[in-house]
Amino acid sequence: MRSSLKYIGIMTGTSMDAIDVIIASLETTPEVISKYSTPINAELRNILMDFATKKEIDIDLFVRIHFILAEEYSKAVSYALKEANLSASDICAIGLHGQTIRHLPKQEKIAQSLPATGATFQLGSGAALASLTGIDVVSDFRSADIALGGEGAPLMPMFDYRFLLSADHNRIILNIGGIANITFLPAGCNEEQIIAFDTGPGNMILDALALEYFNKPFDHHGEAAKGGEIDIELLSELLSDQYFIQKPPKSTGRELFGKKFLDKFKEKVEKKALSPADAIRTATELTAISITEAMSFLPREMLEKYPTEIIASGGGVKNIFLSEQITNLLPKMKFRISDEIGIPSQAKEALAFAYFAKAFLGNDHIHLPNTTGAKRKNILGSLSKGK
Amino acid sequence: MRSSLKYIGIMTGTSMDAIDVIIASLETTPEVISKYSTPINAELRNILMDFATKKEIDIDLFVRIHFILAEEYSKAVSYALKEANLSASDICAIGLHGQTIRHLPKQEKIAQSLPATGATFQLGSGAALASLTGIDVVSDFRSADIALGGEGAPLMPMFDYRFLLSADHNRIILNIGGIANITFLPAGCNEEQIIAFDTGPGNMILDALALEYFNKPFDHHGEAAKGGEIDIELLSELLSDQYFIQKPPKSTGRELFGKKFLDKFKEKVEKKALSPADAIRTATELTAISITEAMSFLPREMLEKYPTEIIASGGGVKNIFLSEQITNLLPKMKFRISDEIGIPSQAKEALAFAYFAKAFLGNDHIHLPNTTGAKRKNILGSLSKGK
Repeated sequence: MRSSLKYIGIMTGTSMDAIDVIIASLETTPEVISKYSTPINAELRNILMDFATKKEIDIDLFVRIHFILAEEYSKAVSYALKEANLSASDICAIGLHGQTIRHLPKQEKIAQSLPATGATFQLGSGAALASLTGIDVVSDFRSADIALGGEGAPLMPMFDYRFLLSADHNRIILNIGGIANITFLPAGCNEEQIIAFDTGPGNMILDALALEYFNKPFDHHGEAAKGGEIDIELLSELLSDQYFIQKPPKSTGRELFGKKFLDKFKEKVEKKALSPADAIRTATELTAISITEAMSFLPREMLEKYPTEIIASGGGVKNIFLSEQITNLLPKMKFRISDEIGIPSQAKEALAFAYFAKAFLGNDHIHLPNTTGAKRKNILGSLSKGK
Repeated sequence: MRSSLKYIGIMTGTSMDAIDVIIASLETTPEVISKYSTPINAELRNILMDFATKKEIDIDLFVRIHFILAEEYSKAVSYALKEANLSASDICAIGLHGQTIRHLPKQEKIAQSLPATGATFQLGSGAALASLTGIDVVSDFRSADIALGGEGAPLMPMFDYRFLLSADHNRIILNIGGIANITFLPAGCNEEQIIAFDTGPGNMILDALALEYFNKPFDHHGEAAKGGEIDIELLSELLSDQYFIQKPPKSTGRELFGKKFLDKFKEKVEKKALSPADAIRTATELTAISITEAMSFLPREMLEKYPTEIIASGGGVKNIFLSEQITNLLPKMKFRISDEIGIPSQAKEALAFAYFAKAFLGNDHIHLPNTTGAKRKNILGSLSKGK
């Protein structure tokens, strides 16, 4: 009997902390064969963080990092295959997200005689990774959507729709990564009824504050936040940001919620007007409220008609205190971690990119123009061959 | 009767002056259906020239140009299709070279804990172009070869071998673009016998001097050069550059022969030690000698066994004076312009990229590891779908 086809997904999120590799088969339900996560090399991470925050970049270095990152991905793939007792020839294709360096979906003119365009760029060459691993790679999943006037995000909704739709429950698929996003799947819905967007900051500000004031890469179980008080004034100011009011479709990234929001906290802490614990407590509340308030964009009649479950994933679900705040703010909804229904909460995005590679090869569409804003559907991704 | 399959090739060379589009069928011999060339938008060209010469680049702008260039390519494709009375659905695929911004084939370490890699980057998003035109695009042809330790160049030899091999003549396929390169095809040779490499500067220095001192984009027919004298001292100094002595495989670009060589001329002109006419005459001789001296790397026994033809193409063949110098220096070889044998001399590279798209789809290899230096063969290019 022929075993089911296997795909690899690779994800590195906006927090730039780890390379997540998943090996899975993707027939009617995803079946995870193996997961592997490795921290990003510290020197490489420093360079990537520099790229994310600096305006001007040494372009030789930038172009080299495109290839170096592919080497690092290739090493991670080798380890993952070894751990799973598989070889390159067992894999149909790799779906590679790459490291987002800029995501500029807004159509802007940079010169009078040139057309207005959006733009996005993920570092980590798909062509290099394919030749290094000997496995076909599909990468660059966001560019075509951007070129068609879309936001280039979110892409998760099609994965959610394909594998997480319920016939008798509304499901809100919540991912809390650096940025938090939701996919609303009304019970038994069709593609056109899906609503999906980035809600705002996920762990991005929390992790930065944990590092700055607690010397930890993240706030373990939300313990630091638990010891603080909410600064209502700062919280209100931050929640008044235009992004939270803007109707979906919408997407965001480090550009909006990175340094700008973080500086608000740091300024106040430096003036001794806020303790570090209060800062991280307030940031936790900001994340919780921006997620729960986003529910107001969902159609009330569907929420009233069927029971609603939140299916949560991403690094943020490890922050128990944050999950509690979200649960408290949404008493009518059942909060579940995606692992309970077979989707690994810490590798869901990697799993989705494995699926996106499969979708490219099968000529399946993975973006929903009514959520990304693209003019029309187009097969997303670019295929580089491994042989 | 089904008409033969049509492909589009798009080329923008190191001189960054024009977008060349060709529509062709590529059965046993290439058949050019239509050619279209358009100057690159002036504001865009200024930005690209800036990118080529500056060390640090505004990364937002860089990422946007990736998409803007795709819009410009898309417009050029529309015009070319219209002129040929064809529509997008008549085309199998586009082969896109893109605008090289950095070509760094040498394996270098940038940090202790990171692997040594080469790198290359072409601006002009293939995914964006595919979605804008509705035509499948194959792009990024050099990255896999670089990742496999190769020079990422030359790619022309396989096109030359496929379409220009002669049974009874040695052929030296010479392309004089910004950089000049040759493919040596011994009479009736096999793939392993092909020798190919960049010989050094083509029009790059000539065009820069023409612009600087004669206010012209290039030296028309070599008339400016004709009025000057060779500065033997400067010529000898430049010809002593390591690159000319280095054995093939080797490749080069604007990095080596751009500003550095140009400055040598400009310094001497500013000191009134060289007239502008003498400068351009000397640069013409530099190009001619570096091309003709490169023949010393070819196997003498083959050159003695069969008559040898030079098949020339590229902007440089319009410089009649330059062609005469090359002919004078190689009296035993017959100098022909490629148009005489059915290959448009001013669109040969664009035609080759049309072929490379076809090769990707047909799983054909287009690089020769013994000329690029790659560890092994790999299908080159990345496919983005147009629908």
